[in-house]
Amino acid sequence: MGRRKFLAGGAVGAAALTSGCDCGSVNPEAIGALPGRRRELKMVTTWPKDFPGLGTMAERTAQFITEMSSGAMRVQVFSAGELVPAFESFDAVSNGVADMYHGADYYWVGKSQGWPFFTAVPFGMTTSEIMAWIEFGGGQELWDELGARFRIKPLAAGNTGHQMGGWFKRPIDSLEDLRGRVIRMPGLGGEVLRRVGASAVAISGGEIYPALQSGAIDGTEWVGPWNDLAFGFYNEAKYYYWPGFHEPGAQLTLGLNLDIWEEMTPAEQSIIIGACHRANHLSIAEFAHYNAVALRQLVEEHGVELRQMPDDVFAALGSAAQQVYEEIASDGDDITRRIFESFKASMVRSQEWGRISDEAYMAARRSAFSF
Amino acid sequence: MGRRKFLAGGAVGAAALTSGCDCGSVNPEAIGALPGRRRELKMVTTWPKDFPGLGTMAERTAQFITEMSSGAMRVQVFSAGELVPAFESFDAVSNGVADMYHGADYYWVGKSQGWPFFTAVPFGMTTSEIMAWIEFGGGQELWDELGARFRIKPLAAGNTGHQMGGWFKRPIDSLEDLRGRVIRMPGLGGEVLRRVGASAVAISGGEIYPALQSGAIDGTEWVGPWNDLAFGFYNEAKYYYWPGFHEPGAQLTLGLNLDIWEEMTPAEQSIIIGACHRANHLSIAEFAHYNAVALRQLVEEHGVELRQMPDDVFAALGSAAQQVYEEIASDGDDITRRIFESFKASMVRSQEWGRISDEAYMAARRSAFSF
Repeated sequence: MGRRKFLAGGAVGAAALTSGCDCGSVNPEAIGALPGRRRELKMVTTWPKDFPGLGTMAERTAQFITEMSSGAMRVQVFSAGELVPAFESFDAVSNGVADMYHGADYYWVGKSQGWPFFTAVPFGMTTSEIMAWIEFGGGQELWDELGARFRIKPLAAGNTGHQMGGWFKRPIDSLEDLRGRVIRMPGLGGEVLRRVGASAVAISGGEIYPALQSGAIDGTEWVGPWNDLAFGFYNEAKYYYWPGFHEPGAQLTLGLNLDIWEEMTPAEQSIIIGACHRANHLSIAEFAHYNAVALRQLVEEHGVELRQMPDDVFAALGSAAQQVYEEIASDGDDITRRIFESFKASMVRSQEWGRISDEAYMAARRSAFSF
Repeated sequence: MGRRKFLAGGAVGAAALTSGCDCGSVNPEAIGALPGRRRELKMVTTWPKDFPGLGTMAERTAQFITEMSSGAMRVQVFSAGELVPAFESFDAVSNGVADMYHGADYYWVGKSQGWPFFTAVPFGMTTSEIMAWIEFGGGQELWDELGARFRIKPLAAGNTGHQMGGWFKRPIDSLEDLRGRVIRMPGLGGEVLRRVGASAVAISGGEIYPALQSGAIDGTEWVGPWNDLAFGFYNEAKYYYWPGFHEPGAQLTLGLNLDIWEEMTPAEQSIIIGACHRANHLSIAEFAHYNAVALRQLVEEHGVELRQMPDDVFAALGSAAQQVYEEIASDGDDITRRIFESFKASMVRSQEWGRISDEAYMAARRSAFSF
């Protein structure tokens, strides 16, 4: 597509170099870029501006790229709707209107059923599990292959950690209590809910609160304590259910236009990867910290009642999810099937390890130890 | 201490700049360094060369710094013993013999009892918990304060994930079975073992296998399935116990000489932080993947018997650990007490969140779902 985004530094840069240079923080020679040139890059996002943990992580990823390159790559961030609407971010990068997007790849399920596996799927991978698969278990190679079909280079650039089961106006004591309830849950999670008799709807973030208030919906999931507290759902629904089944560790993506990626120098590519993985590190830490802080506020200051999703409900949701995967495995296109098989093999291995390590440790620590 | 490590690029660099420059990947103007200069940095490590996950992560961190700076900061890595012995890495960086170390900060417990909290302590934090504390819960500020006393700037640069309970020649069915047993476990974990009647010894990695073979020790911990498989402990001890209590998510450190850190430009500091957090991201993924792969090999190919540490043993270890912390809280120096209080407050919050998120999810997924 040949969309070169170099801007010649021109006479000023050249003069500075030959005169001994007081380049300050903007250095046109930096990171192996062609002398006297620098990159101006546009990032679109699927997030509202300053949206905690998501919009802010997009901003930080951009800032890391700019900082680490001493300004030789300057990234301008456009929040959802500023340059293109949120869900057109993918096409905008694919066709070169923007250079990169920060978002969640399950939004592109209409392009291929393979995409959701790189964000989160029901009963799927936790945060460390998806990192294991992507970086060392063959995930990145399949992600690259899928991305290349759309001229996209995808990289992990954030993770929300575990997402909660959601807010309900009335308790869910058994599977019966889910039947007929109108619940906001988009994507494959919503499909699973429908198969156990609930009425799943997909409405955007801004529409949730009024819908909960008016009684148009009986319950909703959103993210976790940190983001949910900000929306004030506890005012309209007192029962907060755990654990969630639908997004056990949602990975965020930086997707770059593949032409831009391929024309970058090794140093520039290294800085892009560095910025993404630094964002991933920070994101895990940030959600872990602020979810813990917000959880306590919800319970102690807002009287929220934490409730465990009953075993029979979880079992029914699990069976429904298995059906969904069987359909994907038999009906999906070739690359979706290969993604699914690779995901499954990695997750089964990781589960065996998780059972005797983090899961067992957290349970044993609670019963054997307190400060 | 005024240890400037700039090397003037000299005539060659200056000539290249004024003649239009074909700088290749080494660009003396890169990342805001002074014109015509570049940094040559020495990294010492506490790891043997190419040691999986640890020595290799030190090498990668160095490589990321060099790559992302286009060679303007070149980092030369010295494995344990090459420049200084492993446990002299800290002093070497503190007094300027080297510019940075990659290692585990609990090795410096002799300098202050505060150091182990930044690696791992018995019944302490998991991987995501320590990240939450360091990056957002006040941990980095205390780490910086402790480090500054020794002219060290510490950064998170890797994490082993959960470490296993260890290898035993005979089963441990009750607390009685631990009494008098000679077990290799260094640090605070060893101290906890001693308080329940075991004889804990601290021998180096290379000494473990012969000691297990000769019967000089009855059991040993090391790291996790990936590293333990490589050492072949399964040949001498068939019982592999889970979960571990002593290192639930050991964080690795890049510690820089503070003079070097303070004289770096913002762009150089940003690249150093980027390299460390990229290493942390990759390390979590790598241990999660290879531990899962190795666990299966140990069980299926080497007939290892996985056993859960009995509840009464875990409870006794937990009580012993509480005593240890009470002593640290009352006897430690001022900064150790403040580190302990901050660590404790963050961990208690994180535990509440972990119980209803990752722990609950992993357990529920196992019972409700399989592919």
